[in-house]
Amino acid sequence: MATIKNGNDVYALAAFDKEAQLQPHTIGRPEPGPYDVAIDILFCGMCHSDCHACNGDWGIDSWPIAPGHEIAGVVRQVGDQVTQFKVGDKVGVGCMVSSCRECDLCQQGLEQHCPKMIQTYGSTFPEGQGDNFQNAVGYHTNGGYSSAITVNEHFVFHIPPSMKMEYAGVLLCAGITTFSPLNRHILQKGGGAGKTVGVVGFGGLGQMAVKLAKAMNVDRIVVFSRNNSKKADAEALGAELLVHSDASAMDQAARSIDLILDTVSAPHAIAPLMNTLKVGGNYVLLGAVAKPMEVGAFPLIFSRHSVEGSLIGGTQETQEMLDFCAQHQIVPQYEVIPAKDANAHFHAMIKGTSGAKRSVIDMSTIAEYCQPVTSASQ
Amino acid sequence: MATIKNGNDVYALAAFDKEAQLQPHTIGRPEPGPYDVAIDILFCGMCHSDCHACNGDWGIDSWPIAPGHEIAGVVRQVGDQVTQFKVGDKVGVGCMVSSCRECDLCQQGLEQHCPKMIQTYGSTFPEGQGDNFQNAVGYHTNGGYSSAITVNEHFVFHIPPSMKMEYAGVLLCAGITTFSPLNRHILQKGGGAGKTVGVVGFGGLGQMAVKLAKAMNVDRIVVFSRNNSKKADAEALGAELLVHSDASAMDQAARSIDLILDTVSAPHAIAPLMNTLKVGGNYVLLGAVAKPMEVGAFPLIFSRHSVEGSLIGGTQETQEMLDFCAQHQIVPQYEVIPAKDANAHFHAMIKGTSGAKRSVIDMSTIAEYCQPVTSASQ
Repeated sequence: MATIKNGNDVYALAAFDKEAQLQPHTIGRPEPGPYDVAIDILFCGMCHSDCHACNGDWGIDSWPIAPGHEIAGVVRQVGDQVTQFKVGDKVGVGCMVSSCRECDLCQQGLEQHCPKMIQTYGSTFPEGQGDNFQNAVGYHTNGGYSSAITVNEHFVFHIPPSMKMEYAGVLLCAGITTFSPLNRHILQKGGGAGKTVGVVGFGGLGQMAVKLAKAMNVDRIVVFSRNNSKKADAEALGAELLVHSDASAMDQAARSIDLILDTVSAPHAIAPLMNTLKVGGNYVLLGAVAKPMEVGAFPLIFSRHSVEGSLIGGTQETQEMLDFCAQHQIVPQYEVIPAKDANAHFHAMIKGTSGAKRSVIDMSTIAEYCQPVTSASQ
Repeated sequence: MATIKNGNDVYALAAFDKEAQLQPHTIGRPEPGPYDVAIDILFCGMCHSDCHACNGDWGIDSWPIAPGHEIAGVVRQVGDQVTQFKVGDKVGVGCMVSSCRECDLCQQGLEQHCPKMIQTYGSTFPEGQGDNFQNAVGYHTNGGYSSAITVNEHFVFHIPPSMKMEYAGVLLCAGITTFSPLNRHILQKGGGAGKTVGVVGFGGLGQMAVKLAKAMNVDRIVVFSRNNSKKADAEALGAELLVHSDASAMDQAARSIDLILDTVSAPHAIAPLMNTLKVGGNYVLLGAVAKPMEVGAFPLIFSRHSVEGSLIGGTQETQEMLDFCAQHQIVPQYEVIPAKDANAHFHAMIKGTSGAKRSVIDMSTIAEYCQPVTSASQ
């Protein structure tokens, strides 16, 4: 299982209070139980959710906490009942590390909605669930800003041979978040031919959405943005850009789009964007906007629109996403940074100055950062 | 086609201005074109929408206007290309009398969403669409508060032999409005076994929704109401009643419902009701609430809920609904009234004092009301 309460065998970058300063730390990871995989982490992407968890925005009040749910690594050891993985395999771990595996939702492959789902970091271990739990009851999980993790094989993914470890973890968050609604509404409904997809916001999620939609053969992709500054970037990915404050352009786009993925997490009006949906079109919210959104009953009724939400994806769908991205050579924008630079980037994310490019911590640098050669420096 | 500009062969009850006083009137109906069916109207249900159309709420500013879209009658004459109907057939006409028949939406059986859809009353005839239009360009359609109507056979329905003419028209509004989302989400997805359906509001639409859900073998039906006054009525139809201001009852119902049909057209908070939906559950708005509704992104995302609207149904689905209601002996609450009482009921609907029982005008009484035997009375 993903963590134990006591122990100091694994290096981590952890926040120690709401100030959310990432500092060197050591945490415990258990030996793998019979169904567990022990993983040496090579890379972990940095997601804005990590900040919300560490600075108390999402109600976590147990520190120190090491975040990180975009994990890529190599299998070091497996439990004796593990069937899908062997030592040396390239593997990934995403946003969750456990669920009940028995409820209707788990049976349907919707583990992310299981009431007993345990997130990769920040979830408190309940009593009597899973392996090796007795060491961790009441303690919270710690994530991938660390040198190793132990996870039940059901929540471990194969990283396809052609995929670089550097960015594979990023796909387990931004990739699955955008793949899942596209899979449901486009791929599983005959593919993208003849379809138009809209994408609101053109950060990391928005760019992934455009790349995935393109790979699903969507005919026309429209990026909605606040201004024209990202026009060339959108066009380079095969999308057109519409400035959503341009009333005449928005009028021209009325009733032309089958599916809109809204990746923006700041409060914004969705009614003008919904006007661009065809009859029966779907508006999918991916950004966790804190303030309630206003939705008009009239347009919903007279155009049979739906507004819905989507949260990552289940384990089977996540593996499908990785395989799809490998097949279509879909790569997110990313840069590799050393562990010592993680805190600066973390606070750039909090301030909103970090841009669309994902920063990925090179975990080969964590030991040196966490355990500086003090004898030499003194 | 449904009306002509000039003519005085047909009796009608019409509003002459925004005061919406229904008064005797005569209107023109054309001889049937090759694809048209001429119908003698026997009964027409009175819907609250009729009031909104007549008093200017919905932007109609051309009087006099005869409303009515819950029409049941008998075929008097058919055009020479009509294939589905013959003289003497029991037929119904609902909320629409024309659409382009060529667009994607019409081809999918969603004529109600066709941009060229003509409503049974209050739509203005465009130029060059359909038969017999030259007499009516720029004029609006008149509905079923009248003694006869002429309609393209595509928009005419067969009333099943076992169904009473008195209430058949009511099904063409309240019936199809509730049948369509239940059909989409329950009947076409394997039926109601193991499913729970919620119904918000227990007026005419709400009662129909409960009866239809029951006939679809839905296991559990929950009526959400403001208080317990309709508890016995709900239970008589096989539903339980939940008072939506009862926080503990609402907590108990959390995540238990697959589909909610919301029939309330007054502004109300839907977030507490949505909490009772299962993961992946659908919230369908049927009431045209004028004020935007507030929807939280968090519950949509974390529970994969959808909020959607639904508007009557297409022609094929409407015929299926009539056949389904006949097969399952589904009868709306109704009372037959004479033409002379229609205006009083109309204004009770405007005031909101008319109750859930549908009033249906007995059109055999319209001639006497519209053309009183003045020689005898003077």
